[in-house]
Amino acid sequence: MVNSRRPGQSKEVSPRKENDLVEFLSGFSPDSVTLGTPIGFIVRNQDTRSSDYEALKGKFRPNHADYTYLKKYGIHDFRGGGRSSARDTVSRVVGGAIASQIIAKIGIKIDACLSRVGKTELTNPYDILMSGKKAFDSFPCPDKDIAEAMRREIMNAAKEHDSIGGTVSCVITGAPVGLGEPLAHKLHALLAESMLSINAAKGFEYGDGFKSAMQLGSEAMDCFNSDNNGNITLTSNHSGGIQGGISNGMPITFSVAFKPTPTIFRTIKTIDSNGEPTELTMTGRHDPCVAVRAVPVVKACAAMVMVDALIAANKYGTFNESVL
Amino acid sequence: MVNSRRPGQSKEVSPRKENDLVEFLSGFSPDSVTLGTPIGFIVRNQDTRSSDYEALKGKFRPNHADYTYLKKYGIHDFRGGGRSSARDTVSRVVGGAIASQIIAKIGIKIDACLSRVGKTELTNPYDILMSGKKAFDSFPCPDKDIAEAMRREIMNAAKEHDSIGGTVSCVITGAPVGLGEPLAHKLHALLAESMLSINAAKGFEYGDGFKSAMQLGSEAMDCFNSDNNGNITLTSNHSGGIQGGISNGMPITFSVAFKPTPTIFRTIKTIDSNGEPTELTMTGRHDPCVAVRAVPVVKACAAMVMVDALIAANKYGTFNESVL
Amino acid sequence: MVNSRRPGQSKEVSPRKENDLVEFLSGFSPDSVTLGTPIGFIVRNQDTRSSDYEALKGKFRPNHADYTYLKKYGIHDFRGGGRSSARDTVSRVVGGAIASQIIAKIGIKIDACLSRVGKTELTNPYDILMSGKKAFDSFPCPDKDIAEAMRREIMNAAKEHDSIGGTVSCVITGAPVGLGEPLAHKLHALLAESMLSINAAKGFEYGDGFKSAMQLGSEAMDCFNSDNNGNITLTSNHSGGIQGGISNGMPITFSVAFKPTPTIFRTIKTIDSNGEPTELTMTGRHDPCVAVRAVPVVKACAAMVMVDALIAANKYGTFNESVL
Amino acid sequence: MVNSRRPGQSKEVSPRKENDLVEFLSGFSPDSVTLGTPIGFIVRNQDTRSSDYEALKGKFRPNHADYTYLKKYGIHDFRGGGRSSARDTVSRVVGGAIASQIIAKIGIKIDACLSRVGKTELTNPYDILMSGKKAFDSFPCPDKDIAEAMRREIMNAAKEHDSIGGTVSCVITGAPVGLGEPLAHKLHALLAESMLSINAAKGFEYGDGFKSAMQLGSEAMDCFNSDNNGNITLTSNHSGGIQGGISNGMPITFSVAFKPTPTIFRTIKTIDSNGEPTELTMTGRHDPCVAVRAVPVVKACAAMVMVDALIAANKYGTFNESVL
Repeated sequence: MVNSRRPGQSKEVSPRKENDLVEFLSGFSPDSVTLGTPIGFIVRNQDTRSSDYEALKGKFRPNHADYTYLKKYGIHDFRGGGRSSARDTVSRVVGGAIASQIIAKIGIKIDACLSRVGKTELTNPYDILMSGKKAFDSFPCPDKDIAEAMRREIMNAAKEHDSIGGTVSCVITGAPVGLGEPLAHKLHALLAESMLSINAAKGFEYGDGFKSAMQLGSEAMDCFNSDNNGNITLTSNHSGGIQGGISNGMPITFSVAFKPTPTIFRTIKTIDSNGEPTELTMTGRHDPCVAVRAVPVVKACAAMVMVDALIAANKYGTFNESVL
Repeated sequence: MVNSRRPGQSKEVSPRKENDLVEFLSGFSPDSVTLGTPIGFIVRNQDTRSSDYEALKGKFRPNHADYTYLKKYGIHDFRGGGRSSARDTVSRVVGGAIASQIIAKIGIKIDACLSRVGKTELTNPYDILMSGKKAFDSFPCPDKDIAEAMRREIMNAAKEHDSIGGTVSCVITGAPVGLGEPLAHKLHALLAESMLSINAAKGFEYGDGFKSAMQLGSEAMDCFNSDNNGNITLTSNHSGGIQGGISNGMPITFSVAFKPTPTIFRTIKTIDSNGEPTELTMTGRHDPCVAVRAVPVVKACAAMVMVDALIAANKYGTFNESVL
Repeated sequence: MVNSRRPGQSKEVSPRKENDLVEFLSGFSPDSVTLGTPIGFIVRNQDTRSSDYEALKGKFRPNHADYTYLKKYGIHDFRGGGRSSARDTVSRVVGGAIASQIIAKIGIKIDACLSRVGKTELTNPYDILMSGKKAFDSFPCPDKDIAEAMRREIMNAAKEHDSIGGTVSCVITGAPVGLGEPLAHKLHALLAESMLSINAAKGFEYGDGFKSAMQLGSEAMDCFNSDNNGNITLTSNHSGGIQGGISNGMPITFSVAFKPTPTIFRTIKTIDSNGEPTELTMTGRHDPCVAVRAVPVVKACAAMVMVDALIAANKYGTFNESVL
Repeated sequence: MVNSRRPGQSKEVSPRKENDLVEFLSGFSPDSVTLGTPIGFIVRNQDTRSSDYEALKGKFRPNHADYTYLKKYGIHDFRGGGRSSARDTVSRVVGGAIASQIIAKIGIKIDACLSRVGKTELTNPYDILMSGKKAFDSFPCPDKDIAEAMRREIMNAAKEHDSIGGTVSCVITGAPVGLGEPLAHKLHALLAESMLSINAAKGFEYGDGFKSAMQLGSEAMDCFNSDNNGNITLTSNHSGGIQGGISNGMPITFSVAFKPTPTIFRTIKTIDSNGEPTELTMTGRHDPCVAVRAVPVVKACAAMVMVDALIAANKYGTFNESVL
């Protein structure tokens, strides 16, 4: 019932075996109809090996949250990455699976793919996603050749005990005009807040994004038109489906940059919690490219933002009907 | 007392004369000491010309919020851009002026500059800002030659009745370790939410940002070190001062992309609120490069996010002391 | 346009002359149609006499917030009672005036009256309010004899330079079934939170309230019935229109207890901010019975709670239509 | 580790056997130190008998939330009372058990007792609680004779297949001056909101409460004094430890009225979900006096409100230390 955040158990992802079994605690009647009550669930870790983390005790892993957590909370549970573990994303994926079913009822669809891994870039990812082209095999990129090149970059990084960054692009179609609030909760600000809460995310852009900074106003303009039936359309989508913070009926397009997985399997110099120099060899089961696994998480978070925006727009009723 | 959002009344910015007089309504004792009560203020529009907007009545300006507001609220006050007007930013600048004084008390400083206008880019803006180099003349870019090239791009766009995009880069120094929350309110997510609520913002990145997607893990690593006094430092700042959503004591670095001003002074085809084709000639007093004016707004919003994060961190007392 | 919180400028209320002129800053088009944007307004104090408060400087008035504010904020603006002044209620009355127009559109009506002043009690206030009987003359009690006795109690207290407590009872009719949330935001909890934020409020009860504690279950039962048209009704209203935290379609009934005005015009022993014994003679213009003035405030707060509950119930659209 | 909400498994309370086993899911290190991360737990229902509820299917129980929930959500899970079941209070008791340990660290203590059952009243409950007198035997009333009379009222009601109301009084001692916010989150408003979210609560009062409405200002006055050490004290506590919404250092005193248990074991007339008249015989395992069981819930909720107020007061650090 619930999409996994494991989009392809190919060799590019970590060998950790987690069946991610979801136990629902509340929110449904026996015949799977939602009751309007909070939906509670647990996904227990099935395959933890605290031993993998034993060697890290008291040492700060670079680019991890070990140091900041310790300073913030005065205590740090080093096992499994603690609260900053990407295991957190499993609950987003479950939430997103439910949210997706709600938005599907009014015709909203979300698709996402890898648009960059290291030096390999997929050009025009939004157009490709909108064309309905599906991801090749088990790897979340819909262009066969680009997918192959991305895989190669990941394998090469892994071979060198290194990791590599990537970008995820996402398109939301079918959203009605009017979602998002004018000032503090602009639709793209809500999306950014959600996407940048995913582990390893470093940047967010929507529509033409950072490319906008290089454009002239005359190049960036989305002109209004109306079709034969009097429906208002736009002749282009530089705005990414959002104007003044509010959805304009065009596809909502955005991308999220992810840094390379911070865990690399080399011995590196660091310090311990006493500030003394030490060495650290990270082991464990980590993906060489966290962006690969981020694709379903981006989709899930987007679905939840859309549901929130629909509720805030106060327009589509109480969602009382069964959606599962 | 309050920094203006008008950083240089040179010819690059619009000729609108707004003195932005702030009337404080509450929050201070007669001797300007804050009372712990809400600080209320008004900045009245001094120089509005609704006539400039009369010609727009019932027509949708491209890349503006006219259409989305009308669809969302069923009514649209076309005068002055209504609520989507960048006049909104004046209250952020006032709030930021107060916030800046609070954070200055614990040594937090914020500086920002233009790092791109169209094709002209300032390389390494964070390093330049951290070097303490100040903006050249009245234009918010600290490199004389780059500033000159940026001005030229803006003037050229204006000459063609066009507008141009730009990027603002910002550095926050002196922030203590531990600001930001681990999941939903990561410090960079709060910054993104705030920055993307500024008019015309299209993207946000922190640290190495979108460049991270092209990096190997071994390139992106910020290694821990300790100085002779046992203070923990990092040997680089790819992370942009934030790890796991929490400040790590290094400078916090981020950039915001702004699209070209949507108003350009040409006659363009559009439709009216009946869906009928029409023409539109935008007049009024608009900056050809909104990013120029965005610099003090970015600084102001950053200051407010830092105060919010300090309060959430629950660590620096009640800010009872007079800060003005 | 806006109901005053001055229900009868008779001699029972303080001689302070405040015209309570409301200046609206935002939220309306020129033809008084709401725009969906925030409604901002100011009511400036017209008739302040800081001199009345000069004698209080550095002395703690009993049952006022002087001491607690000073300890909480480290500073206290003694003039006019500062932020704990009942002047705060003027903004509630303005908000309530707008909220009342929204709820009137769907048939919700609110009435309230004094149900006790000192020893004088109005029995069955909810029934009397529901009968549509209006307040006698300029005094907010619909029973002529009881009103007269209440006035007498107030005059007697005033004559002795004393003050007196009272209770306000309120009935909300026409509310649809389904307002209020099941756990944390039960409708009666929202009402209580709002009512107990009014100055001098000491207690809140709904339906049979504290009397319920003396009842048997068989006495307190509201049995279901259906009329000839199949509409569901209840044969009594011990529940006060709310069951399980959610409105059940019956009139919502509640009462709020107010303590005597804490300012009494006698010389009393107290201490100063150094902890030294001193004497204090309170002057100024204060009502001997704050409950009298609380009647329109209770109504206003009730109207705002109903609008909030309607919005939370996500059922009655976006209130786009003009309501003023 | 966790106080039960079952204060005396005597025959006054329902024979349902629920061991209320708490499984903690997160928030603690292996040696029971809190980590600053959310504390998650589950208490599974051990002894549910849906069969008890089978006869109720489609019939509205008077004074229950069956009808309001059905109308609000369009669906109602009749088994076990669904979400309006008092089983909800078990999570409050767990939360309160943790909150109690936090506040105990700074000397805040909470005690509560039954102060009324039907006609039997405990006079001056706050004084008795402050005297440290403990509840008699297994029944939550510290006066032996009154406790006996209360038990008798409950047994008599039960014998008649009826139920009975009651009042719980609570005292919080050791709270510092300065908790609570001046307007919307007055300390007593927060307490009221919390207490009135407990099942069957009908009223809340603090300090002299509803009695205040009968008082003169000169009777209700709490005069300031200072002891030999210069500490500020008050000569009485009519205010119930809160002035202007903010704690004043005196004991915080409040009472909550509870209606009789709505389930009584008689055959009553009601209607079904088609609006047709029907009869209903409620069975199951219900306490004849819900107020008895409410005592530990009131204490738990009070503890959580105090922790929230401490956090909001931003004064006592980050509670990093181990509290369990």
